[in-house]
Amino acid sequence: MSDLRLPGDPALRAEASAWFETLRDRLCAVLEAIEDEQTGPLSDRPPGRFERTAWDRAGGGGGVMAVMKGRVFEKVGVNVSTVWGELSEPFRGEVPGASPDDGRFWASGVSLVAHTHSPLAPAVHMNTRHIATAAMAWFGGGADLNPPLPVAEDTAAFHAALRDCCGRHPCGDYPRFREWADDYFFIRHRGVARGVGGIFYDYIDADGASFAFTRDVGETFRAIYPDLVRRRMAKPWTDEERERQLVYRGRYAEFNLVYDRGTRFGLMTGGDADAILMSLPPEAKWP
Amino acid sequence: MSDLRLPGDPALRAEASAWFETLRDRLCAVLEAIEDEQTGPLSDRPPGRFERTAWDRAGGGGGVMAVMKGRVFEKVGVNVSTVWGELSEPFRGEVPGASPDDGRFWASGVSLVAHTHSPLAPAVHMNTRHIATAAMAWFGGGADLNPPLPVAEDTAAFHAALRDCCGRHPCGDYPRFREWADDYFFIRHRGVARGVGGIFYDYIDADGASFAFTRDVGETFRAIYPDLVRRRMAKPWTDEERERQLVYRGRYAEFNLVYDRGTRFGLMTGGDADAILMSLPPEAKWP
Repeated sequence: MSDLRLPGDPALRAEASAWFETLRDRLCAVLEAIEDEQTGPLSDRPPGRFERTAWDRAGGGGGVMAVMKGRVFEKVGVNVSTVWGELSEPFRGEVPGASPDDGRFWASGVSLVAHTHSPLAPAVHMNTRHIATAAMAWFGGGADLNPPLPVAEDTAAFHAALRDCCGRHPCGDYPRFREWADDYFFIRHRGVARGVGGIFYDYIDADGASFAFTRDVGETFRAIYPDLVRRRMAKPWTDEERERQLVYRGRYAEFNLVYDRGTRFGLMTGGDADAILMSLPPEAKWP
Repeated sequence: MSDLRLPGDPALRAEASAWFETLRDRLCAVLEAIEDEQTGPLSDRPPGRFERTAWDRAGGGGGVMAVMKGRVFEKVGVNVSTVWGELSEPFRGEVPGASPDDGRFWASGVSLVAHTHSPLAPAVHMNTRHIATAAMAWFGGGADLNPPLPVAEDTAAFHAALRDCCGRHPCGDYPRFREWADDYFFIRHRGVARGVGGIFYDYIDADGASFAFTRDVGETFRAIYPDLVRRRMAKPWTDEERERQLVYRGRYAEFNLVYDRGTRFGLMTGGDADAILMSLPPEAKWP
């Protein structure tokens, strides 16, 4: 496929995909710094470092999966990908801006899922993306906090940071994006939320303003999440707290495998299974 | 709903649902006997016993979930259910014998999923069922062996028992049922089989012969699976073997949550989440 035929604005595509890689590097740096800082549980182990693995997509593009198995982070993955090509015909009806006779798409994004050893520190998910089809181009993303044992002040700090971020941008509709996260990250068959929420947004027309908002979501996440981990990472935990974490993680795996659109889309369309399922917890229980 | 309006043959319905409960009792008895027999690893613990929990279905019927957490079986569940009512309109097109203006159904079955502590002993799944809709009534079922570390002679013995069972019945088309299991119990996104196979059959017209076959599948399973566990249960295992088992179980959880029709149907239609997800492994890893 010649670059001329790709949908979307070439300059914005280039800037967005470069930004997602920059954000990935900054996220990896702060998470590695936390590994260095640990003086609490498991600090006899060496600090973790990310390992990167590149993958190619048969239909066009590819990505890099970065995974760290450390002493604070039991498993954390940060994926970037930039892919393009033609949507399969049955799938075109489900993607805004695609039409039966024009299934071209271009998509780039960064996603992070972190699972800490400590049940007292929160797991987390963050994703931002820029997608273009023949007739539309948009930004989307979000972040939600997944503490096995929620702490009210941490939850409040996470929401406050995202609320302030939204408040800095005309397109940042915080009440709507927060409710969207509550609706989306819900384990319907159990009638419980996956975590304590955050924001979720999608189909925000791609322009300089929505790109600025998307960058700010990434930077806001990069500031608040490490702070929440630092608050809790030095404290020892009990076997009972660890057990509760493992059961909580089972619910998390259920959500990702049964409901998460990105996960199911990836699995159903032949994506790289290891990269798609990077989000699954390192250990989980269904006692 | 008056009993007169239920689809299917009343005598066969009554006999089948009673049989599934009888088979449940026999399966529980042999698995509890294995718990008593253990002299190998974890034999310092008390032998496990099943605990039963009844549940009702809002639209009609209900079931009993029997779960044992023992010293040979880390977690084994045996569910029986007999449910009836009206299929939702969008779902009628997917169920043989249902029509847009007649969504009556009656369904009864028994299912078993066993996960052993030992990675050297096989996990297993077995299910048999009788379902009736307005214009059809059938038996279905199957069993597949899920050893984390397959042993060729055990796999051969499992397949031979099922082959011999099929050979005793005119409707027992072993080559077809074995291939059906290979197709069904396949983790497509990883390109690997869930286990080492078995049989899977469905939509076999309900009559005395197919009921006899279905009973024999249950009895055959009750004879062969305990024998395979007894062969392996006394041997100690290594940490590395346990680790391989936990990763194998992660794949098993992926299959059940992403592909298994019964699991997804149950979750999407508001069934009892604990009973539906009884099949999930007690512990799993995605390292």
